Amino acid sequence: MQEESFKRTEISELGEFKLIKLLTSEFAKLQNSTIKGIGDDAAVIDAANACTLISTDLLIEGIHFDLTYTPLKHLGYKSIIVNLSDIYAMNAIPTQVTVSIAVSNRFSVEAIEEIYEGIRTACDFYKVDLVGGDTTSSPKGLVISVTAIGRQIKEKIVYRSGANSGDQIFVTGEIGAAYLGLQLLEREKLIFLENPKIPIDLEDQKFCVGKFLKPEAARTAIFQFAQSDIIPTSMIDLSDGLSSDLLHICEQSNQGALIFEENVPINTEAQLLAIKFNLDPITAALNGGEDYELLFTANDTDSEKLRFLPGFYHIGEIVDPNLGVKLRSNSGKLHPITAQGWNHF
Amino acid sequence: MQEESFKRTEISELGEFKLIKLLTSEFAKLQNSTIKGIGDDAAVIDAANACTLISTDLLIEGIHFDLTYTPLKHLGYKSIIVNLSDIYAMNAIPTQVTVSIAVSNRFSVEAIEEIYEGIRTACDFYKVDLVGGDTTSSPKGLVISVTAIGRQIKEKIVYRSGANSGDQIFVTGEIGAAYLGLQLLEREKLIFLENPKIPIDLEDQKFCVGKFLKPEAARTAIFQFAQSDIIPTSMIDLSDGLSSDLLHICEQSNQGALIFEENVPINTEAQLLAIKFNLDPITAALNGGEDYELLFTANDTDSEKLRFLPGFYHIGEIVDPNLGVKLRSNSGKLHPITAQGWNHF
Repeated sequence: MQEESFKRTEISELGEFKLIKLLTSEFAKLQNSTIKGIGDDAAVIDAANACTLISTDLLIEGIHFDLTYTPLKHLGYKSIIVNLSDIYAMNAIPTQVTVSIAVSNRFSVEAIEEIYEGIRTACDFYKVDLVGGDTTSSPKGLVISVTAIGRQIKEKIVYRSGANSGDQIFVTGEIGAAYLGLQLLEREKLIFLENPKIPIDLEDQKFCVGKFLKPEAARTAIFQFAQSDIIPTSMIDLSDGLSSDLLHICEQSNQGALIFEENVPINTEAQLLAIKFNLDPITAALNGGEDYELLFTANDTDSEKLRFLPGFYHIGEIVDPNLGVKLRSNSGKLHPITAQGWNHF
Repeated sequence: MQEESFKRTEISELGEFKLIKLLTSEFAKLQNSTIKGIGDDAAVIDAANACTLISTDLLIEGIHFDLTYTPLKHLGYKSIIVNLSDIYAMNAIPTQVTVSIAVSNRFSVEAIEEIYEGIRTACDFYKVDLVGGDTTSSPKGLVISVTAIGRQIKEKIVYRSGANSGDQIFVTGEIGAAYLGLQLLEREKLIFLENPKIPIDLEDQKFCVGKFLKPEAARTAIFQFAQSDIIPTSMIDLSDGLSSDLLHICEQSNQGALIFEENVPINTEAQLLAIKFNLDPITAALNGGEDYELLFTANDTDSEKLRFLPGFYHIGEIVDPNLGVKLRSNSGKLHPITAQGWNHF
């Protein structure tokens, strides 16, 4: 009975970011307590002396995860991690989560309990409370929606928009491994579907597979910032890939960037695996997503402190916007960095 | 490759409430700022002088809504209303929402824009800011996940657990109409599917159909409470149905209740429609859900004030738990009230 609108634009024509912009551009700010709405890793809400931060994610079976190779417990764990990561990416501390789950009758109570065991393990480890949610049925497949809530004083919250020319660019860990872990799992899935008798061979790639199936959020970095009085000028978590996420920082800060290939930290196991897949390791690091490390920029004073702290990798610097966003390869050539992050559409 | 757990319990064996209890019972409270977690309309988080309230809902196509007769704009509007209603049900004021949407390629950009037009209309009307969300694809159908954030000082937050014996029970509007509106839409859908040539006949039942497709949240009541210094002793929003929601209050407050059939407000149009469907109107009012009126209890002083305020219906009183939860029919007989609310499993 419902009529289709006259004009039909396919969502794939726009892509996620343009779609969000289109849909949310006409929403005016109505509440004084709204410090920051859409457009960063989390929303910021003024709560007197501290601010409340809110981040939310929707995970859909067949789009964001594949139960052929994802253990349910790991799925529960990861669904929490990806949201906590958004709160850390604002230099804030996550304190609560809500979890809503929709399941078809393909799933038993025991299966859902396994998901929640992973959720509980993550909540315990990251010291966040599960404070609400919704459990309902779905005609097909599994849907998980998580909202994370965090706190930080206004002065210490770090947005994507604060990078300045001359700032140094850092990441909190090795990148590219999660993407390669996923490639391996996908390859083994195809082999299994074609011939279930061939034994699964994950080639003992524990680092890459583990990084994809059970990532951790970079909270150690946030604790180190607090201890060393460091406040990054801008920050984002690496969920879509270094290219795509760096471009977010550059666009929102109105700056350019230069990344030094030789400085980008790529785990040895990931490098070897990339070569097996006929991929340049730096391509996997730039375009692979789901590492959940933090990408941030720091001013001179803080960059100096960061040199002496473990776990931080200096990968480049913020430059004049006219210079664009570029990679300086090991051979010294400059290559423009374009968004090739994960696009689920 | 994933192995099924050994024991398999069907979700339908447990039902939603037992499932939530099972899944969340082992989560310990880790954060001091968590005042109230799972088990009420919203979570309460201490934010210094005011508290932050969080409520979330997951709406799945084919389970919670049917696009055969639900205009997309109304769907967007309603998805916000049902979450704001949970915040009002805590005697708090909603201030922000996040909205995540997953859509299959069956939906065009224009279709999603229509949903967001409804969302924006609701945000404008209720003065809440859209501060975040996620837009992604789904292999099939439409999923909407909304999280609402609200504020209230600790002393004024109303839980489901505060009803005392002798308190009077009120609702903020006529009930049962949404359920009857849904019955009418479902009947017309079946007729349409059998023979698309028969014209759709909604019998000009604007009140019932409107109450289902475009409900409003009971914010006027919350403003009246503030103006008249009324703080209900317990409160819940009528989403599952009067029976089911009253039982939540009685269970969590450890009290019984007596509802007077003659006092339950049922709109004339809804009464006539109930009879057409061979339903006792009081049955529709007790078991029908989605009215989004507030059900609350008040002490003697506040009950006296409520007599002189428009829009409040006195429908019964809280009694000793040994007396159970009962309906006193127009003929004076007592009938036990049992949970027959909406169970999506």
